[in-house]
Formats: sequence, structure tokens, C-alpha cells
Amino acid sequence: MKLGVLCSGGDSPGMNAAIRGAVLRAVDVHGFEMIGFMDGWRGFHEGDWIPLDRSAVRGLSPLGGVILGTSRVPPFAGGRGEDIDLTAFRARFAEYGLDGFLLIGGNGTQTVSSLLTDAGIPAIGLPKTIDNDLGGTDYTFGFDTAVSIAAEAIDRLRTTGESHRRCMVLEVMGRDAGWIALHAGMAGGAQVMLLPEYPESLAQVCDWVTSVRDRGRSSLVVVAEGFRLDGAEQAVTRDGLDGFGRPRLGGVAEVLAPLIEAGTGIETRATVLGHVQRGGSPTAFDRVLATRTGMAAADAALAGTWGTMAALRGDQVEMVPFGDAVDRLKTVPADRYAAVRLNFG
Amino acid sequence: MKLGVLCSGGDSPGMNAAIRGAVLRAVDVHGFEMIGFMDGWRGFHEGDWIPLDRSAVRGLSPLGGVILGTSRVPPFAGGRGEDIDLTAFRARFAEYGLDGFLLIGGNGTQTVSSLLTDAGIPAIGLPKTIDNDLGGTDYTFGFDTAVSIAAEAIDRLRTTGESHRRCMVLEVMGRDAGWIALHAGMAGGAQVMLLPEYPESLAQVCDWVTSVRDRGRSSLVVVAEGFRLDGAEQAVTRDGLDGFGRPRLGGVAEVLAPLIEAGTGIETRATVLGHVQRGGSPTAFDRVLATRTGMAAADAALAGTWGTMAALRGDQVEMVPFGDAVDRLKTVPADRYAAVRLNFG
Amino acid sequence: MKLGVLCSGGDSPGMNAAIRGAVLRAVDVHGFEMIGFMDGWRGFHEGDWIPLDRSAVRGLSPLGGVILGTSRVPPFAGGRGEDIDLTAFRARFAEYGLDGFLLIGGNGTQTVSSLLTDAGIPAIGLPKTIDNDLGGTDYTFGFDTAVSIAAEAIDRLRTTGESHRRCMVLEVMGRDAGWIALHAGMAGGAQVMLLPEYPESLAQVCDWVTSVRDRGRSSLVVVAEGFRLDGAEQAVTRDGLDGFGRPRLGGVAEVLAPLIEAGTGIETRATVLGHVQRGGSPTAFDRVLATRTGMAAADAALAGTWGTMAALRGDQVEMVPFGDAVDRLKTVPADRYAAVRLNFG
Amino acid sequence: MKLGVLCSGGDSPGMNAAIRGAVLRAVDVHGFEMIGFMDGWRGFHEGDWIPLDRSAVRGLSPLGGVILGTSRVPPFAGGRGEDIDLTAFRARFAEYGLDGFLLIGGNGTQTVSSLLTDAGIPAIGLPKTIDNDLGGTDYTFGFDTAVSIAAEAIDRLRTTGESHRRCMVLEVMGRDAGWIALHAGMAGGAQVMLLPEYPESLAQVCDWVTSVRDRGRSSLVVVAEGFRLDGAEQAVTRDGLDGFGRPRLGGVAEVLAPLIEAGTGIETRATVLGHVQRGGSPTAFDRVLATRTGMAAADAALAGTWGTMAALRGDQVEMVPFGDAVDRLKTVPADRYAAVRLNFG
Repeated sequence: MKLGVLCSGGDSPGMNAAIRGAVLRAVDVHGFEMIGFMDGWRGFHEGDWIPLDRSAVRGLSPLGGVILGTSRVPPFAGGRGEDIDLTAFRARFAEYGLDGFLLIGGNGTQTVSSLLTDAGIPAIGLPKTIDNDLGGTDYTFGFDTAVSIAAEAIDRLRTTGESHRRCMVLEVMGRDAGWIALHAGMAGGAQVMLLPEYPESLAQVCDWVTSVRDRGRSSLVVVAEGFRLDGAEQAVTRDGLDGFGRPRLGGVAEVLAPLIEAGTGIETRATVLGHVQRGGSPTAFDRVLATRTGMAAADAALAGTWGTMAALRGDQVEMVPFGDAVDRLKTVPADRYAAVRLNFG
Repeated sequence: MKLGVLCSGGDSPGMNAAIRGAVLRAVDVHGFEMIGFMDGWRGFHEGDWIPLDRSAVRGLSPLGGVILGTSRVPPFAGGRGEDIDLTAFRARFAEYGLDGFLLIGGNGTQTVSSLLTDAGIPAIGLPKTIDNDLGGTDYTFGFDTAVSIAAEAIDRLRTTGESHRRCMVLEVMGRDAGWIALHAGMAGGAQVMLLPEYPESLAQVCDWVTSVRDRGRSSLVVVAEGFRLDGAEQAVTRDGLDGFGRPRLGGVAEVLAPLIEAGTGIETRATVLGHVQRGGSPTAFDRVLATRTGMAAADAALAGTWGTMAALRGDQVEMVPFGDAVDRLKTVPADRYAAVRLNFG
Repeated sequence: MKLGVLCSGGDSPGMNAAIRGAVLRAVDVHGFEMIGFMDGWRGFHEGDWIPLDRSAVRGLSPLGGVILGTSRVPPFAGGRGEDIDLTAFRARFAEYGLDGFLLIGGNGTQTVSSLLTDAGIPAIGLPKTIDNDLGGTDYTFGFDTAVSIAAEAIDRLRTTGESHRRCMVLEVMGRDAGWIALHAGMAGGAQVMLLPEYPESLAQVCDWVTSVRDRGRSSLVVVAEGFRLDGAEQAVTRDGLDGFGRPRLGGVAEVLAPLIEAGTGIETRATVLGHVQRGGSPTAFDRVLATRTGMAAADAALAGTWGTMAALRGDQVEMVPFGDAVDRLKTVPADRYAAVRLNFG
Repeated sequence: MKLGVLCSGGDSPGMNAAIRGAVLRAVDVHGFEMIGFMDGWRGFHEGDWIPLDRSAVRGLSPLGGVILGTSRVPPFAGGRGEDIDLTAFRARFAEYGLDGFLLIGGNGTQTVSSLLTDAGIPAIGLPKTIDNDLGGTDYTFGFDTAVSIAAEAIDRLRTTGESHRRCMVLEVMGRDAGWIALHAGMAGGAQVMLLPEYPESLAQVCDWVTSVRDRGRSSLVVVAEGFRLDGAEQAVTRDGLDGFGRPRLGGVAEVLAPLIEAGTGIETRATVLGHVQRGGSPTAFDRVLATRTGMAAADAALAGTWGTMAALRGDQVEMVPFGDAVDRLKTVPADRYAAVRLNFG
């Protein structure tokens, strides 16, 4: 059997470990042949690939990024609900002599995996996203590393905030789901966590920050990039973010900080963590999860259980049908937010 | 309501975060009173305790160790299957005016929690052990930190091993269960992982190490402290460990390394990671898990669901009856070991 | 003898260790009395201080920030070249019964120390600045930690940059001196380092980035916050930074990134590291340097060598006259920049 | 010009960065040819080498270990004070067409560099040793990384020690010089530091540990591997270490811990840090120092200043004659030890 593997979408710490896990299992144990396409679907379209065997994945587990590269190049024109012409795609697939795909990616990629399998082109999904917003799995690899980096930033900001009696605002990733903000905030003991799913008013945020000061402490506010102020202030924020006729500089933290300072009289500083969150050596947790994901995907190929995704369920990695995962953005549930909100301020 | 909290057994990164989570919830949200006994049951017996409120747990989340201290002092004489006289214990409990316990500990402590609840003294368990050998929960806090430290040690040993073309043997904790060795080994890409559950012969271990050398690499062997060589060699090992009429120095790694060197002709060095594994700032994962464990325990006290333990199940922290947890050592299942063993060497 | 210690200016990792070093030596060994003023000169003006003994500095070495707090409140009205009225200041000094000051701060604070000593109020300086721009000493504590954090950010950004074939621009601190950019860039293997001391043209920067791409790699550009583009482009940059009639958001990296992308056609992303650089646990190097600085300052007080600053010279910490240090901004020498510039691109 | 580079002796974090620095400068800037011998002098003797250019050293700065490998294979038979026959050596040197050597190593290697230059075979030294026991330079690369790892271990051990009210003994490297113990101990706030240069009696050590307990704290004792107890106890220790007719297991910490426990009644645990200290990614400090060392060595080859070693002097890397460095073990001076000893206990 010959498998093609590629990565699509934003990179996520653990992609190298996942590829290594799949190769150790598929090539070394099951005796498959395996190739990796460079830069996602670009490599597939352009015939840019490398052979993958044990020596190619040597020492990969601790390395960040991904040796294959990744991109957002689409696999084919069109998408769900549109007509898709797979003629060229099938020709390429046959030309490479592939029996199936191992596709490492987020929501979009898992949707593609589902579409391909439905169309008779066997695919197995390896879910990855630092945002943890993918349904059907407890956690995706990359998330723990992102949380870990954000929590370390909170630890650092807290000491400088306390030394200067300042309110520190840290912006972390999370356009639609606030998982990184929630978990990093809990880990770092942030006094306020602002998530995309749960708008709050500026007055409420300022109340919390003031209440922390009144207890003799300095606030650490962690805010997901997708958070928006509630109600009337929304306009202000949006103006702050997008107006002025030029490309937006900075993020929501840089809009929020001066508003908090104005509303509380407390000196406030913003930090936007940015791309640092998605790079570098994965945590041990993510390395193990990614390796197991790769191994499970290779085993699923052997078993012929195409059309599935390797998902973490409790302490097991299991293959689940794409239906459970695709088209479902996993956001922070109301009870998880309510539980931490009770202690804000 | 008034709750008493204490820690028993070996320390585990995250204990401070668990106490903080419980206090934030029980005291600040539910309005309970809460006290912490110093050094486990010693503080209970001797009236050595401190009041716990928000200011007492300020900044605790990132701190290793535990502000209350911990010890192996028993709660009462006797144990399961023996007659236990709780008269003095009940008197103390009444004297403190307690309504219930939050007990942070491993297998033994969860057994005590079960016994106490059965005897009409309400208790809730907060499971902790770096060894991850507790049933009823996916993972216990402290484990991820231990794995993370061991994986970093592997990363470091690997570079010096490769530079000198040496075989490096790293001993990690795990007397009865090989979870740390398994996960740290996967994370660090160890070529051999030796677990207490699965004896191997010296010849087999040497074959793996030789095979790694033949591929042009240097071996990294991770061995759990409870591992024993298979069959006839057992005696040799046991002699090496316990003989010579003096207190044992070093661990299994220091016995294994010269045996591997003699058996393969490859220069081999041992490192015993030791107590470093259980100290220091917890990982973000453990801080979140511990905080959620504390919060769930406080909520369970409010709900009156005594006789339960806060367990991680998938991405939820749930209260489970002690029956699921106590008296069951969770070891590495055969399929998990078999999966990695296929790639040894 | 009674000493007063305070911190002034921006915080710098190691301030706690410096205070601990001074107390261990001055109080425990020399038998002095010691008090610490809160929030710099504010505490001195308002009588807000704490006694400092061994138990007060327990466990401080690894902690970031500073237990005394710091601020930019001035010690008195006026400054060098102006008339200074020290009447109120002297009264306060007498009221506290002080024999001298230990002043932890950057350029400004060392100037104040010099002024005070000249006016008969004995002071000893403990130099700190993450920017390393203070003359008279090889390095100041805080710098190594800042470089270390920035280098780790480069390690992280490099992997995500390579995975996406992007140019990554990292902005680090350094308004007037490019030490952090130079050292972090060398440590992380950045292909371009842009320093405040050495303007470069946009065309030159784009040439370097293009040349890196032509070698098949992705650029990592580290830029100090005080860097400005050379010549005509200066106006563009300044517009980008300050124009648009609203408070500036983001930094020079966020201005530079789109200009590089436009000039090279290579996707480019900016990250502003910000306050994360000055917080958190100091590196071992900074802890040792800060501890030795505090010890040397306490010894100088015993010896009565007021009017000096504790400076690192080679592997020794020596007391140097303020004249060597104050009023001299230490910038990156031309030969250090030239040496790395030869390999840019 | 054609240069040969090799590493000799124990590995030291930063060796890769030093090679990269030398290549960037010698090959890219000066246009030299450069080759690297594998596994030290073994590669030289056996013709096992690789060409070194910019692509060969790509991404090396953060990597631990060394791509060339290292060994203790001697360059020739004999040594100082003996007759050395360099005939075969000269033939090899001519065969490779070399104009000179860049030799990365510790005391022994710098002695060899001196000998070779004296014999007309041009060599430049790049000093490295994690032990920092080399004269003529403020610090050697690798030392800061070792100190940093040991300080982190102290941070971890302290929390578990305090939780259990135990005395923790940490053994670090340093056979003849106690630099790692001194600096890591200062960084971690150890209460006792035991160095090879300064024997202490068991009674004194126990007094310190007891005094710490009396202050309500738990002791952290850091001991260099080469430390020996003073006077009569020496025999006991030596027996403990070497007796029993079998290879010694464990180190001085494992001998000391039970003696302290017996002498104080305080539960005491030993940890031997071992090879972990010399592996893994170098600190930013070591990466910068190593890179500058490599660059300076390449420049010295261009300038023809053979017979020198690249040394750190203050904030400069300068070429110093071997005479200043070789045959001089740099130990911890009495005043440095006395300064910290005053606060022991």
C-alpha cells in the first residue's frame, strides 16, 4: 500500500511528531510505502514530494513547524454545496499510485477528507489546530503547546505588572473559540478572561479591574483575539480596530488597554502574543498525542477504515467518523465560562 | 459549611493550584469556611492548621510543592480488613467543627476517603500522583509535569549521547506502573522503553541497542525505576541492586548501564532523574486540571455528593464514586506497550 | 548602620535577587539595619517602607518583578544643571535615621546617586536595565533574561516561518541601543538584525530578505523598537507610526512587515514581543550577577566607599566611581554591528 | 586558505554555534575552505571529514551536542615532557592540504594547540568546558547552560523539599573546580554549597542543615562531584564511594545524604544531576559567546595570529596567547567561597 501525507492550514506544534508516528508504524511495521507532499496541496498539484521512511523522520518528535511545510492552497475548485470536478485530482492520485491519504489539518481539511472519501478517494484525517475548536475529539495537538506558551507569558507579565501596579492585557489566539484564553488564564491565574463566545461590556471589565486593585493586586486580563465588547461599545471597538483608512495595526488588546485605562484610571499595558504561540518545540503532551494520532492513522489505513479521523477520547486515541467532527466548531460551553467568571475581579 | 483540606503522600505538581481552585470556589463563591491542615494528617492530629481564603491562595497556581506540606502520617491506626477505632478521630473532627474533608492524595488517600465516608465522616477525594497509576480518571495532575521534565531530560541526553556515540540510559519514576517512561519515551523519541509491567531479557535489550547503532544512531533507553530484567538475569540485577550489605546506592539504570555496555561493546552512561521529576512549577496542563479538580470538589461539597472523587473523563471533570478508583492500580495496558515495542531498536 | 534600599525606573529581572544579596550581607553578616521603600521614591516621600531581614528575602532569588515595587516618581524637583532644593529630602533622610542609600536603577538612578553623594547624602548604585545601555559595567542584570526570552521567541517564530515560507519580523526592546536585538539575533541565528544605532534603507532590508529566500530559507528579521529606516523612507515610517490622528498602535515591526512584503513579494508577519521581555523568573546568569551586585553594594557600605556603583568587570564585581557610568549611553559599537552585518541575508 | 576544525573532550553546549560562527566568517566572509573532522582526532587519523559551508551549518545555533561528534582519541602519542613524534601527523596535515586548525576543546586541547603551533603546525584554540576551569578567559561556553540546568533543578528540588520538610542534596558536575556548584547554588538560593576546593567537616555540614531547620526551612545542599569531607571522615566517605568490591554506583551526594540524615535526624534525599547538565539547547548567553568565539577564531586565522585562543575578557572576545590559558586550572578563589560561606545555614 502507498500512502500520501500532507499538511494543510496553519501550522500546529506536533505536526512533525504526527508524521513520524505515522511513518514508524506504516512503513516500519506495516511495510507500506509513504510519500509526503510539500506545502500542502501545492506539492500534490505540482508533483513536489519526498519519500518518507524511518531515516527521513529521525529526531522529528521535538521539532516545531513541519518538515513538509504547509499552505492554504485548496485541493480542488469548489466546496461543499457546489459542484466539484475531481477529474484532474483523480488523475494526479492515480499518477502517484496512491492507495489513500493521511491528511493533517483543521476543520477545513477534515471536511476535505470527508468529501474525498465520499467520492471514492480514501482518506484518513489527523486533526490539528492550536485553537482546539474542532469537534469530535477532546483535544487537538498544538493546543497544549499554545496554552503553555500563553501561560508562561502570563507568568512573566504578572511580575512586571505587580512591580509597576499596572493592569496587563494579554491577547492570545482564538478567533471564534476562546479555549486558549480560558486554559492559559486558568493556568496563569488571570483575574479576567475575555472570550469570543461571551461579549462583556466595557463597564463590566473596568469593574473587575477596579475590584482587583481594591484587593491590593494588579490585574492580568487575558483576551482572545476574537473578543468584542458588548453592545454600544462594539462600534467604538470596531472603529478602533478597522477605521482610519489604513491597515489595522495591533489587535483587540491594543484597543482594550487604553479603554480600560480611561475607565479605571489604572495604568494599563497591552501585549499581543501572536505567532510565538504556534511555533517552537511542542510540549510533551502534544508530542505524545501527535505521535499516537499518527500511529492510529497508519493502523486505520491497514484496517481500511477510511473516512475516519484519529480522535482523542479520554486516554484513548480512536478513529471516529468525520460526521462527528466536521462542520462543527467546538466553542467554550457556557458552564465552563460561568464557572470561571464567578471569580473574575 | 466548614471544610478541612489536607494533602497526603508524595507531593505532586498542581497541589497548590488544586487548593486555590477549591478555595476560590468554596469560600468566594459558595461562602464556606475552609481550613488547611499542615503536613497531612499530622496537622489534623496536632491541631496545626491555617485558615484558607482568597488572600491565602493568592498567586498559588504556578507554584510547585504545596503550602500546606504533605506527609505519610496515617489518619488512624489500622486499615481495610482490620478493626479501626475512629473514636479519637471523630472527636477531633467535631472539635474543628468540620462538615467534611477535601482530601488530596493518591491511591491510599482515596481509600481513606472511602473508608471515612462509609463511617459517616463526609469526604471528597482529589486524586494526585505523578505516577498516573490511579484508576477511575484519565490522568491525575502532576503526571504531565513529570512527563514533561523527563522528556526534556531525554532531549538533553540525546544530544550528548549522539556527540559521543554513547548509549544513554535514563531512569524515571514508576515503581509499579510505567506511564512516565512510556509517555516521556514517546515524547523524546526514545528507542527503548522499559516498564515495570513488561520484563525483557538483557539479550533483547542489547539487541535493540545494537540495532540502533547499526542504523548509525545512538540509543536512548528510558527505564522506569520498577523495571526488572526477565528470567535468569533477575537474580543478577537484584544482587546488583540490594546486595553488598549496605544501603542501595543508585537505581536500576546504574545496574543496567554496565550490563548493556558489557553486552554490546557500546559505551553506556546512566542518569537517574530522581526527585527533580516531582518538583517545580507545574505545566499549564496540570495547573488547569488541578484547578478544575479543586473547583469540582468544592461544588460537590455544596451538592452534598460526598464519597466521590473528582476525575478527568475526556474534557470534563466529573465526580465518580470511590469504588471506581480505589484498590485498582492503573498500569500500562498490553496494547499500549505492544504498539511502541514494535519500533524499538 | 542603617541603609535604605529602593528601585527606580522600569523593572528588570534580578531586582529581587539583588535585594536579597544585599540583605544577606548587610543585615546577616555586617549587622546593619535595612529598610526598603515601596514603589521607588514614592515610598520615601510618603513614609511607605518595610523592614528587610533574612526572612523578608526568603526564596526571592528566582522570583521576577520586585517585592518593593518600582516607579518613575522623581526623588526631588529639578536635575543636573538646574537648582535642586534638597531641604525636604534631607529632612526625610534624617527622619528615617538613614546612614546611606542602596539605589537600584538605570542611567537616571545612577545620576541621582551621584548627585546625592556629591551633596553629602551617601549613596551606592546597583545598576539594572534590560537594555544593557549603561556605561561602566560589562553587563547589567536583566539583560541576559531579556535576551534569553527574545532568543526563545526567535526559535519559535523560525519554525512557523519555515513551515509557511514566510518572513517573520520580531520587534524587541531597545529604544536607543540595540543590544537585545544584537544578542538575541546572534543566539537565534536571525538573518537580519536592525538596530537603532545603524539605520538601513528599505531597499537594503528587502535585498537581504530576498537573498535568504533565494538560498531556500525563510527570513527571521529581528528589529529593535528604536530602529528607523534610512533616508527618504524615514518619513513614510514616521507617518506609519504616528500619523492618522490617533494613539499609535503597534510598533516598528508592524510598520516594517507590510513594507517588506510589498518590496519582496514574500508573505511577512510581525510580532511585537513587548513586556514579556522584562517579566518572569530571571536566568541563572542574572540571578548570580544581581546577587553579587547586592553583596558588593553591602560591602561597599561597610567600607564607606560611597559614590560608587557595583559593576561587572570580567568575572569580578567591582565598585566603580559614578563618573564612569552616568551620562554615558552604552550603544552597540560599530565593529560589533559590522561583524554580524557581513553575514546578513 | 584551508582550515580544519574538530572537537575534542567532553561535549559542551555551544559547540555547534561555535562551528557555525567560524564557518559564517571564514567561508562566507573570508572565502576560506573549511572541513570538519568527525569524532575529534579519530576523524583526522582516519580521513573521516565533511566539508563545511553555510548550508552545512544552517540552523545550528540552538542545537545541543555537536554535528561533528567529539572523542578523547589523542592527536599523537606522548605529551608534554615526553618525546613526540609528529611525522605521521605532519603527513596527514599535508595530505589534507590544511593551512591550520581550529581546535575546540578544554585544557588538554589548548595544550595540544600550543604544542602544535610550537612545532610549526598552525593552530587556534576555541575553549569550551562546562566546568569553567580553564584559565585565560572569563567564562567558557557551556558553563552558563550547565549552571542554568542545575539552577532549574534546585528550583524544582526546593519545592518538593519544602513540602516534605526534607533536606535535599543535589550533586552537580565539577571534579576539580566548584564553579557550577557555586553559581547554581547562588542562583537557586542553596543554603550550603560544597566545592572540591574547600573541604568541610561532616559536623559543620550538619550544623548548617540543622540551623536551616531551626529557622523553619528545608535545606538545599548543592555539592560538586569532586567534594570530599574534611579530615577523619574522609576515610568513611572514600569507603562509601569505592569499597564493597564492585564498581561504584552513584556519587558523593548519595554518600553524603545518609550521613547528613544520621547526623541531623532530618530526612535527606540525594539527586545526581549527571549528564543532563551537558546536553540540550544552549542558553542564549552560550550561543552568543560560542558564535563570537568562532568568529574571532576565523578572523585570527585571516590575520595569521596562530598560537592563540579566543577568550572572553569583559564584553570583548580577544585572542590571547596559549601561555595564559594552558596548564592552569582555574578554581574558585578563596574570597568567592568565603563570601557565600558566611551565609550558609
